[in-house]
Amino acid sequence: MQASRLAELISRQRSGWSLEQPFYVSEDIYKFERSGWLAGQWYILAHSSELRQPGYYLVRELLGESLLLVRDEQGNARGFYNVCRHRGSRICSQDGHRKVFVCPYHGWTYRLDGSLRSAAALPIAIDQTTLGLHSIPVREFGGVIWGSLKGEVHALDAVQEAFEPGLRYYGIPSARIAARRRYSIEGNWKLVLENFFECYHCFPAHPEYCSVMKWVDWTAREPADGGVGWKEIVHKWFAEEADPDSPLKETGHALPEDILFGTSRMPIGNGRKTQSQDGNPVAPLMGQQRRFDGGVCGFFVRPFASVSALNDHGMMFQITPTGVGDTEVVLTWLVDGATSDAEIDVPRMIWLWDVTTSQDKALIERNAAGVRSRSYVPGPYSTVERVTAQFVKRYLMEQSALSEAMYSETMQVP
Amino acid sequence: MQASRLAELISRQRSGWSLEQPFYVSEDIYKFERSGWLAGQWYILAHSSELRQPGYYLVRELLGESLLLVRDEQGNARGFYNVCRHRGSRICSQDGHRKVFVCPYHGWTYRLDGSLRSAAALPIAIDQTTLGLHSIPVREFGGVIWGSLKGEVHALDAVQEAFEPGLRYYGIPSARIAARRRYSIEGNWKLVLENFFECYHCFPAHPEYCSVMKWVDWTAREPADGGVGWKEIVHKWFAEEADPDSPLKETGHALPEDILFGTSRMPIGNGRKTQSQDGNPVAPLMGQQRRFDGGVCGFFVRPFASVSALNDHGMMFQITPTGVGDTEVVLTWLVDGATSDAEIDVPRMIWLWDVTTSQDKALIERNAAGVRSRSYVPGPYSTVERVTAQFVKRYLMEQSALSEAMYSETMQVP
Amino acid sequence: MQASRLAELISRQRSGWSLEQPFYVSEDIYKFERSGWLAGQWYILAHSSELRQPGYYLVRELLGESLLLVRDEQGNARGFYNVCRHRGSRICSQDGHRKVFVCPYHGWTYRLDGSLRSAAALPIAIDQTTLGLHSIPVREFGGVIWGSLKGEVHALDAVQEAFEPGLRYYGIPSARIAARRRYSIEGNWKLVLENFFECYHCFPAHPEYCSVMKWVDWTAREPADGGVGWKEIVHKWFAEEADPDSPLKETGHALPEDILFGTSRMPIGNGRKTQSQDGNPVAPLMGQQRRFDGGVCGFFVRPFASVSALNDHGMMFQITPTGVGDTEVVLTWLVDGATSDAEIDVPRMIWLWDVTTSQDKALIERNAAGVRSRSYVPGPYSTVERVTAQFVKRYLMEQSALSEAMYSETMQVP
Repeated sequence: MQASRLAELISRQRSGWSLEQPFYVSEDIYKFERSGWLAGQWYILAHSSELRQPGYYLVRELLGESLLLVRDEQGNARGFYNVCRHRGSRICSQDGHRKVFVCPYHGWTYRLDGSLRSAAALPIAIDQTTLGLHSIPVREFGGVIWGSLKGEVHALDAVQEAFEPGLRYYGIPSARIAARRRYSIEGNWKLVLENFFECYHCFPAHPEYCSVMKWVDWTAREPADGGVGWKEIVHKWFAEEADPDSPLKETGHALPEDILFGTSRMPIGNGRKTQSQDGNPVAPLMGQQRRFDGGVCGFFVRPFASVSALNDHGMMFQITPTGVGDTEVVLTWLVDGATSDAEIDVPRMIWLWDVTTSQDKALIERNAAGVRSRSYVPGPYSTVERVTAQFVKRYLMEQSALSEAMYSETMQVP
Repeated sequence: MQASRLAELISRQRSGWSLEQPFYVSEDIYKFERSGWLAGQWYILAHSSELRQPGYYLVRELLGESLLLVRDEQGNARGFYNVCRHRGSRICSQDGHRKVFVCPYHGWTYRLDGSLRSAAALPIAIDQTTLGLHSIPVREFGGVIWGSLKGEVHALDAVQEAFEPGLRYYGIPSARIAARRRYSIEGNWKLVLENFFECYHCFPAHPEYCSVMKWVDWTAREPADGGVGWKEIVHKWFAEEADPDSPLKETGHALPEDILFGTSRMPIGNGRKTQSQDGNPVAPLMGQQRRFDGGVCGFFVRPFASVSALNDHGMMFQITPTGVGDTEVVLTWLVDGATSDAEIDVPRMIWLWDVTTSQDKALIERNAAGVRSRSYVPGPYSTVERVTAQFVKRYLMEQSALSEAMYSETMQVP
Repeated sequence: MQASRLAELISRQRSGWSLEQPFYVSEDIYKFERSGWLAGQWYILAHSSELRQPGYYLVRELLGESLLLVRDEQGNARGFYNVCRHRGSRICSQDGHRKVFVCPYHGWTYRLDGSLRSAAALPIAIDQTTLGLHSIPVREFGGVIWGSLKGEVHALDAVQEAFEPGLRYYGIPSARIAARRRYSIEGNWKLVLENFFECYHCFPAHPEYCSVMKWVDWTAREPADGGVGWKEIVHKWFAEEADPDSPLKETGHALPEDILFGTSRMPIGNGRKTQSQDGNPVAPLMGQQRRFDGGVCGFFVRPFASVSALNDHGMMFQITPTGVGDTEVVLTWLVDGATSDAEIDVPRMIWLWDVTTSQDKALIERNAAGVRSRSYVPGPYSTVERVTAQFVKRYLMEQSALSEAMYSETMQVP
């Protein structure tokens, strides 16, 4: 695909309607996205507890790249491509802890900061200081390790400022992982996000979610009362029940559709203390909370990453494209780091989001099958799909800006 | 592949020789065929009994498209792409019966005629009458439901006129399905048709078929007597044994190679009443027949569809391309609709064509492997492969006409 | 990929550094290689004992082509594409012996010399003498059957002259196959050869090989003594222990890196008689040898083929590319043809090269995964990787010469 054809395709998309077929199925467009826009986004790669001490490292995939995440000797999280600078071999196969990385092929050795420590029989003319591992931008705060292939690290300054007090209050930095589930979805990443950003499908598809979350009655349909009823519920909850010490204050019932990151806080409702089937706790209180207030807080870095904090557990939502027609969703459930396994109930903890994400996987895969049809044409978003429509708009705007600048580079990535 | 290269490729093919490699393996040529010539052909999609009453529907594949076949409230068979007009989700996963179609993703609802019945929270400016399901051409007569992605419906007028009396006489409209077998063949669709249109391979490859069908002695080799012996057998059979009430009269021993549709009628021979291993009946008489005459009638719409009628059962031959290197053959055996299972013998009924089609699958897959070789060059058709050679000639002529007109459109189908 | 882009890519590779990513992953480059440079190389296809008598034939794969290797009525080894000249069907599925080849599709029959013997009902105008099987260059000497898709047969004259006395002395022509193992490696063929041509990885990756082969102490690292110690060992071995009747004389400790074919001879060392774990024999003496001298001889046709001869067994190393990211390595162990199974110990015979090749498979597959990374850039070869660097240099030089001449042809191979 030529740059001019992509630009024309972008420009003819109709605002408020879903995208044309090539955006969901074209390998060329995916390559363009992967080397540009997707490479520049921020993703959640791990929880801080996964890199316990200096020398601990993780092997993780991001956009088809194998990465080494490591805590260096100064205690900082760092990220490197898992690719030896000699002849390109993978260095590590699985998580572990080491003082140095040794490539199993020819024994080249790297320090925890990625620099080359030793390589036998190198010609004298070779400058070994230029042969350190290639690094990726990594940032750690609030218990979350964020990574990107090309993102600008300072872009997270404002996010850190906005999130850190809340993440600390809800105990995310000192949490431990209680459970993790992976969902491999056969569908383009935009179909996954389009799903994730709207609740229009909640009534037809997510009975469990609808039974738990009170706000669904307003967000999953065009509210007859203009949303007044839900605002009153939220206001009453903040006034009477909400933990007043939380750094997250009443700011409206939901996140505006056009912001790139932000936090939210609302009651679960229906008399529930947490997102379990019966509403009763699944683990001890987390962080600085001293009682159950039945609230749920969200920390969003759009479009791929979010953390949620409840009274008794937290969650990391990790969404990563793995191919033009494949996306991985990883859900990680967090509990207080000092909690024993006997104090938590994992099956009841993961119930809601495991069943909901499994349902979404099926929906998205049907959607992915349908958009491959020669008969597929874009359809209109409903008024309930505002965030989805806004995401698509932002995507197109940013692709357009990138398309001219980056296309020549893309063409050289096989 | 550019239009000019395709045109040059078509023009340099040698009459009477098999095609060059790209016609059997090129993804580009398959895309061109699929969006043009293949989309315009007619295929057998179902037997009428599969859509028993209004509201019954089938989910069927045609050329990589998932289709909904449905009997509407007026009793007409209709076909739609199984793709929601909202965001493109598949609507149905399996056959069933319903009063309306409800998309499981966001609950959009369609009537049996495909029109949009309801969709929540649509922006007021959206004209819902433009959001009905995309339809395909469908035609039903003589108990057979024919479909196409682009075919002109009136093109079947003459076929209906030619076939309907015969299909009725042999009881196809009131039949029921006794058995169905699917054969997924790893080979380009033209290799499947080239096989299907000649009996040159019958002696080396189909001992069972040769033991049943008397005419093989003349059609599978260059007849020493110029075909006189077989003509005498046919003539004698029409004069002495053939059911005189059949609308199919003596018209020659086989279908001319250059017609696009037509019927045939001949004796099985060898003293056989039907195509079973011992020649004895496998089911009660069908339709208006009152005795066994040992004949076999064919109704052909070239190149993909045919129906055959014997005294005691009928068959539908459905051949559909499913990829550049994959073709599906579906055989459906029909018996009188009022017949009980106890009155029919399915294993003996399907014996001949199940063993023959399995043999053909193996032959075609060997052929498909061989034409991928760098050493492959076209070879000469024998005098016994006249219909095959004629099919290839027609294919090239029609591709040539389409290539200029359609190529620009093709290029936009990813 | 256009010829100009390939030429530019070739010209910008840096001498002494590994290749850029496209050479390891590009389908276009692989197609170019396969139809040109790879087609012109010579490969070991079989041992002479596999074609025992006239009429014996083998079905073998080479560069994605199915080939028939057959011993004709004059006793000569011949090779043909396994593709019928009628419509391209595969003719044979497995090894066997026959007087003629009969295509199972339409019964076309070929003689052992590939000529068409009979084909029914061919139009009179067809000249049957032009319809013989397409042949490939094949050469047999010293017990080894060499084949190529395009190689010039006389190019092997000098090889035959150099190898035949040694192969005969060590009994390869009269050997029989004791064992064969296939290793399917998911990696570009150049990654396999780069591995095969250096011992830089021996210490980190091949403890078994290092424990057996004395010379590893000099070849797997930059020798502190400049190689003097190893030369003395070799010299002493030739003077005191080596079988003086062998046609292979002392010519240096290893094969120069820039020759295309050649022989080598050296002691295994470490007091070993053969390459078994304990150094003791695994089979009776081969050929004209009358005692164990603990030597190992090599016969190399670079880059894909080699034979090694020990006192008690021989080996054929067959390396063949099977796709841009797939390579097959076949190891064949040979013993004296008159030896019974009771006299040989297969597990101990195959131990060293089975474990070593399995380790190499894992290393190469890690390497192949790594070079796919967007972060991969060429790295410097060490001084211990001279033969690898030389191979890459030769490859680039010869591709460059071919690229202009052959590119237009390549573009027509689908």
